[in-house]
Amino acid sequence: MFVIGDDSLRKIAIVMGSDSDLSVMRTAADTLKALGVPFAVRVISAHRTPDQARDFARAARAEGYGAIIAAAGKAAHLAGAIAANTTLPVIGVPVKSSTLNGLEALLSTVEMPPGMPVATVAIDGAKNAALLACEMLAIEDAALAEKLSENRADMARAIAAKDEEIRLQFE
Amino acid sequence: MFVIGDDSLRKIAIVMGSDSDLSVMRTAADTLKALGVPFAVRVISAHRTPDQARDFARAARAEGYGAIIAAAGKAAHLAGAIAANTTLPVIGVPVKSSTLNGLEALLSTVEMPPGMPVATVAIDGAKNAALLACEMLAIEDAALAEKLSENRADMARAIAAKDEEIRLQFE
Amino acid sequence: MFVIGDDSLRKIAIVMGSDSDLSVMRTAADTLKALGVPFAVRVISAHRTPDQARDFARAARAEGYGAIIAAAGKAAHLAGAIAANTTLPVIGVPVKSSTLNGLEALLSTVEMPPGMPVATVAIDGAKNAALLACEMLAIEDAALAEKLSENRADMARAIAAKDEEIRLQFE
Amino acid sequence: MFVIGDDSLRKIAIVMGSDSDLSVMRTAADTLKALGVPFAVRVISAHRTPDQARDFARAARAEGYGAIIAAAGKAAHLAGAIAANTTLPVIGVPVKSSTLNGLEALLSTVEMPPGMPVATVAIDGAKNAALLACEMLAIEDAALAEKLSENRADMARAIAAKDEEIRLQFE
Amino acid sequence: MFVIGDDSLRKIAIVMGSDSDLSVMRTAADTLKALGVPFAVRVISAHRTPDQARDFARAARAEGYGAIIAAAGKAAHLAGAIAANTTLPVIGVPVKSSTLNGLEALLSTVEMPPGMPVATVAIDGAKNAALLACEMLAIEDAALAEKLSENRADMARAIAAKDEEIRLQFE
Amino acid sequence: MFVIGDDSLRKIAIVMGSDSDLSVMRTAADTLKALGVPFAVRVISAHRTPDQARDFARAARAEGYGAIIAAAGKAAHLAGAIAANTTLPVIGVPVKSSTLNGLEALLSTVEMPPGMPVATVAIDGAKNAALLACEMLAIEDAALAEKLSENRADMARAIAAKDEEIRLQFE
Amino acid sequence: MFVIGDDSLRKIAIVMGSDSDLSVMRTAADTLKALGVPFAVRVISAHRTPDQARDFARAARAEGYGAIIAAAGKAAHLAGAIAANTTLPVIGVPVKSSTLNGLEALLSTVEMPPGMPVATVAIDGAKNAALLACEMLAIEDAALAEKLSENRADMARAIAAKDEEIRLQFE
Amino acid sequence: MFVIGDDSLRKIAIVMGSDSDLSVMRTAADTLKALGVPFAVRVISAHRTPDQARDFARAARAEGYGAIIAAAGKAAHLAGAIAANTTLPVIGVPVKSSTLNGLEALLSTVEMPPGMPVATVAIDGAKNAALLACEMLAIEDAALAEKLSENRADMARAIAAKDEEIRLQFE
Repeated sequence: MFVIGDDSLRKIAIVMGSDSDLSVMRTAADTLKALGVPFAVRVISAHRTPDQARDFARAARAEGYGAIIAAAGKAAHLAGAIAANTTLPVIGVPVKSSTLNGLEALLSTVEMPPGMPVATVAIDGAKNAALLACEMLAIEDAALAEKLSENRADMARAIAAKDEEIRLQFE
Repeated sequence: MFVIGDDSLRKIAIVMGSDSDLSVMRTAADTLKALGVPFAVRVISAHRTPDQARDFARAARAEGYGAIIAAAGKAAHLAGAIAANTTLPVIGVPVKSSTLNGLEALLSTVEMPPGMPVATVAIDGAKNAALLACEMLAIEDAALAEKLSENRADMARAIAAKDEEIRLQFE
Repeated sequence: MFVIGDDSLRKIAIVMGSDSDLSVMRTAADTLKALGVPFAVRVISAHRTPDQARDFARAARAEGYGAIIAAAGKAAHLAGAIAANTTLPVIGVPVKSSTLNGLEALLSTVEMPPGMPVATVAIDGAKNAALLACEMLAIEDAALAEKLSENRADMARAIAAKDEEIRLQFE
Repeated sequence: MFVIGDDSLRKIAIVMGSDSDLSVMRTAADTLKALGVPFAVRVISAHRTPDQARDFARAARAEGYGAIIAAAGKAAHLAGAIAANTTLPVIGVPVKSSTLNGLEALLSTVEMPPGMPVATVAIDGAKNAALLACEMLAIEDAALAEKLSENRADMARAIAAKDEEIRLQFE
Repeated sequence: MFVIGDDSLRKIAIVMGSDSDLSVMRTAADTLKALGVPFAVRVISAHRTPDQARDFARAARAEGYGAIIAAAGKAAHLAGAIAANTTLPVIGVPVKSSTLNGLEALLSTVEMPPGMPVATVAIDGAKNAALLACEMLAIEDAALAEKLSENRADMARAIAAKDEEIRLQFE
Repeated sequence: MFVIGDDSLRKIAIVMGSDSDLSVMRTAADTLKALGVPFAVRVISAHRTPDQARDFARAARAEGYGAIIAAAGKAAHLAGAIAANTTLPVIGVPVKSSTLNGLEALLSTVEMPPGMPVATVAIDGAKNAALLACEMLAIEDAALAEKLSENRADMARAIAAKDEEIRLQFE
Repeated sequence: MFVIGDDSLRKIAIVMGSDSDLSVMRTAADTLKALGVPFAVRVISAHRTPDQARDFARAARAEGYGAIIAAAGKAAHLAGAIAANTTLPVIGVPVKSSTLNGLEALLSTVEMPPGMPVATVAIDGAKNAALLACEMLAIEDAALAEKLSENRADMARAIAAKDEEIRLQFE
Repeated sequence: MFVIGDDSLRKIAIVMGSDSDLSVMRTAADTLKALGVPFAVRVISAHRTPDQARDFARAARAEGYGAIIAAAGKAAHLAGAIAANTTLPVIGVPVKSSTLNGLEALLSTVEMPPGMPVATVAIDGAKNAALLACEMLAIEDAALAEKLSENRADMARAIAAKDEEIRLQFE
C-alpha cells in the first residue's frame, strides 16, 4: 500500500527536454497550482542526460509522483524514454518547432510501440496535460474530481457569457 | 456482473463508434482480461447516438468506471464527445481508415482545445490504451502496478530471447 | 407544413466554438447582411457547452433556421456535434490554428462518417459558408437566386476591370 | 417563380468526371432512391467535356434540379467548374486515387476561392453527398425532413442493437 | 501590338486568377522581358470569369501565343481550365496561400487526369515558368536557345563568384 | 541553324532512372507511337550513371531531340540532373514508391530552384508527359497540333458515350 | 589508442527494435557480408530493453564496433537512444509501418535535437545503411574504399546493360 | 592552408547550394572550428554548376577530405549529386524553405535509391552535420572521440544546471 501522508495528493512531475520549453509548459504549472495539486518542474533530456531521465522515471513512484508530464519538440523521445522506465502514466506534450510545426513531435510522441503507452495531448497542449494528470489523480479523489467539475462549469459560464455578448452584438 | 466493493478495482469502459472497430479493439479487451481488470465493451456513436454518448459519460464515474477508452475512425469525435461529459480520464484510440490511414482520426482525437483533454495513443493502439488505463488505476493500486511491472519484465525477456536467437543466427 | 411568415426567409445561424473565431467569421455575417438574409451569431462549444450545442441544433428548424454554419479550429467537432442533432444542412468552416494551419480542423470537419454529412468549405472560408447557405435557401427562392447571380456578375466585372488594368500595365 | 409540378421535389444531379467513379457513386444513387428523391446520373468531365459541364450547370436550375453532386478524383476540378456556372448548391465528393489516397482531390475540391463555394463531403463520401442534398431540399419540405429523421432513428437503432450484442458478448 | 511575322517569336501569355498573384508573377514578366520574348499579362479566373478563360484558351494559338503560363492559389483550377481548351502547352504556377502554404495549389495543378497535361513548376515558381516557356519556344529557335545558354552561364559565374568569396572567408 | 531533315519532327527522349519504371512509362511510348512522334527510350540514372545523364543531356539538342521526359521515384533527381545540362524542355514524371506513394518524388521533381525548370506532371503521369512533349513540338507544327485536337475530340466522344450509357442506366 | 588487430576492420552493429524488422534489415547484413565487413545483428528495444540499449551503446567502441545501424518503426527512438550513449556514428533506418508508411519513423529518427546526430537513410533503406557504414570505415581504409568503388562500377554496368536492352526494344 | 601530414585529421567539406544557405551552415563551421577539425566551405550548385559538383566530389578523397557535408533547400539534389561521385560519406542537411518548411528538402535528401546513401540530419541541422562528420573521423581517432565525449559532458552539465535553476524556481 502506498502512503504519502494523510491528506496529501500524489505529486505531478512536469519534465521538459529543454529549458526553452518552459514558455509553453508554464501553463501546466499554473493549472496545477490553481487546482491545488503539488508538482515539481524538471529539465531532463532523453538524449543529453539519459541517465537522469532513467533514474528520475524509476524513482518517481516511490518519491510520491502519481503521473509524469513530459514535453519535448522535434524527434520528441522524452515521454517515451520516461515511459520505458516507469509504470506510472506518462503524459506527452509535443512542442511546436520552427520547421515542421510540431507534427514531427506529435508523431514521435504518440506512435509508441505496443506495450509502452504515452498519453499524448495536443501540440503545445500544456494546459490539457495538467488537467489530464489531475483527472488521473481524481479517479480516486472525490475532492479533486469536484474541483475539475467546477473548472468545467467555469468554462461553460465563460462561453455562455461570450455567447450572450456576441449574440446581442449582431441582433 | 462487476461489483465495486471495498477493495475492488474500478472498471474500464471500452467504447467504440462502430462495431467494425471491434477487430482493432478486441486487443484492448484481451489485455484488460489478462491483467484481471474488470471492463465493459460498448458501441456508442458520437454522431448517431449522441444522447447515449452523453448519458454514458455522465453516469460513468458513479457506475464505477475509472477510465474510458474511446475508439473511432475518420473525423473521430467520440473521445472528445465523451470527455466533454465527464472528468474521468478519456483515452482516445484513432482507428485507421481506408483513405487517410488514420492520420485524420489521430488529429481529430488529439488536437483537443484547452480545457478538455483526451489521452491519445497510437493509431490502432488498442493494447496501449488498455495498458494506459491500467497505469491510471495503478497510481493507487500497488498490486496492479506490480502486474504491470511483470508485464514489462515479460516483454524484456521476450526481446532478450529474440536477441539471442537472431544474434546467433548471424554469428 | 412549415410556416414562418408570408414573405420571410429562413434564418441562417452562424455558430462558432470560441469568440476568438469571430475575426474569421465576421465576413460570413457581412455577406449575409449584404444579401439581406436574416441571421443570428452564437458562441457554442461542442466540448465546453455540449448541452447548448445539442439544444440549439434540435430546436433550430422549429425556430426558423434554414441552415447552420459552424466554425471551429483544431479537433473541430462543432459542425459534427450540431449535425448529429438536426437534419438541417450544416456547413462546417475549419478555422486555421497556429500549429497545423487548419489542416487538422479541415479533416476533423470533413471526414464525417456515413449518415451524418457536414458541408465543408475551405479553411477560414467564412464568406463561402455564407454564400453556400444562401444557395441552399435560394433553391426555392427566385429572388435570392437572382441576388446571388448579381453577386457573381459583380465578381466577374471586378475581375474584368483588373484584367484591363494589368493588361494595359504590361503592354 | 419556379414551378416544377405541384407536389414534385426538385431533382438531384449526380455528376462524375469518369465512369470509373460509378463504383463509388452508386451509393449516392441508392440513397436518393431509398428516400424517394428524383435524380439523374451523368458523366461529364471538367477537362474533357468542359462545354457540357458549363451547359449542364447553366441549365440545371431551369431543368428542375435543386442541387448538384459532383464527384472527381486527383486534381478534382469538376465541382468547382460546375459551381462556377450555377448558383445552385454544388456538393463535391473527392474520390480516392491510387497515389495520394484522395487527399489531393479533397484539397482540390474544398479549398475554393472566396465567392465560389463547394459543399465538400468526405473522400468517397457518396452517401453523405446524397443525404446532404436531401437536407437542402428538406429545408422547405417537411415530408422529406421527416424521412431524414426516420433515417437517423434507424441508424440509432442499428447502433443500439450492435451495442447490445457486443456488450453481452463481453459480459 | 505583337505581330507574328516570318522570323518573329510566338508570344507567351501570363494569366493569373487574381490580381493579388501579380506580386509573385511579376518575376515571370521580368524574365521574359530580359530574354526579349513578347508576352501579355492577363487576369482571368477559372471560377469567376469562366467564359473568358475558355475563350482566351481557344483563341490563343490563332492569336500567336506559343505557351500559356497560368498562376493560381488554393484549389488552383486555372491552369487545368485553360488546358482543357487548348492544345498549346500550359505551364501551371501554384501560388502559396496563407493556410496550406501552396501544397493544395501544387496538388490541384499537377495531379491532372490522363489526357490533359499541365506543365507544373514549383510553388511560386514564376521565374521557372517563364524560362520553361522560353525553352519550349527555343526548341526550334536557335537564337533563343543561345540566350538561354548564356543565362545558364551567367548563373554558373554568379555561383562561382560566391564560391570564391565564401571559400576565402573561411580559409 | 538546326537541320534534322525536311519533314521530320524532333524526337522525344523517354529516360527513366531504373528499368523497373518501364511498367509506368510504357504508356508514354505508346502515346508517342500513336501520335506518330519519333522517340527513344533510355535507362539512365542520375546517381548510378551520372556521366551518362550529363552526356546525354548535353548532346540531346544536337541529336535531334526536342524535349526530354525523365521519370524517377523516391528522391527523384533525374529530371533535375538532365535539366542542369540542357536548355531543352525537360518533363519530369514522379514515379510512385511503395513507401511515400510518390509524394517524395513529386516534391523532388517539381520544387526546382529558380533558373532550372522541370515541367512536372502527375505522379505516374506517363501519358500526360508524352502529350505535353507533343504539345511542345506542336507549337510550330500544325499537323501535330491537329492530331492533338483530334485526340481531344476522341476523349470527349468517349466521355459522351459513357454519359449516355450511364444516364440511361439510371433513368 | 584503439587496437583491434593489425589488419582487422572495425565491426558494424545492426540493431533492430523488434525481430519483425529482420525482413527489412537482412539486406544490410547481406551487403556487409558481400563487402567482407564484420558485423553483428542484435534485437534491442529502446523502450522494452532500455538498459541493454544503453549498455550496448556505451560498450560498443571498446568492443570494436566502428558504427551502429539502428532500425525501428513508428515512434522510432532506437537510433536516438543509442546515439545518446556513444560518440560512434549511429545510422538510423526508419522502418515502414502499416499506418503512416514510415513517415512517422523517418521524422522520429531524423529530427534529432542539436548535439545528438543520427545519420538517417531512406525508409526501409537497409542496403544504404550498410553502404554508409562501410563508407565511414573506408575513410581510412583504402581497400574497403576500392571495394565500394567497384560496387559503384557494377551498378553502373548493370544500368548500362538495362539501357542497352530497353533502348533496342523500342528502336 | 590545410596539410594532411602523417598524424593530421582529414578535412571536412561544407558545401552549400546557394550562398543564402550560409546563415544556416555557419553553425557547422563554428562547431568544427571549436573541435579543432580542419574544414573548407564551398558554394557549389547541383544544377547551376554541375561540373564543379562532380569534379569536387571526385577529387575530394585525394585532396584529404574525410567527409562532405552538403546543404540545400527545396528539391535538394546537392547531397545526392555529390554522393553519386564519391565513396566518401556524404552528410545531407535539408534547408528550410519559405513554402514547404524543408519537408520537401528532407525527402529529396533522405529518400535516396539503394546503392547511393546520404547520411541525412534534421532540417537546418547544421550543428549535427558537423558533429556527425567528427564522429566519422573519430572512429579511428581517439583524441577526437575524447573531445566529442567532453562535448557531451558539457551538454549534460548545461542541462543539469538548467534543471537546478528551474526546479528551484517552482519549489
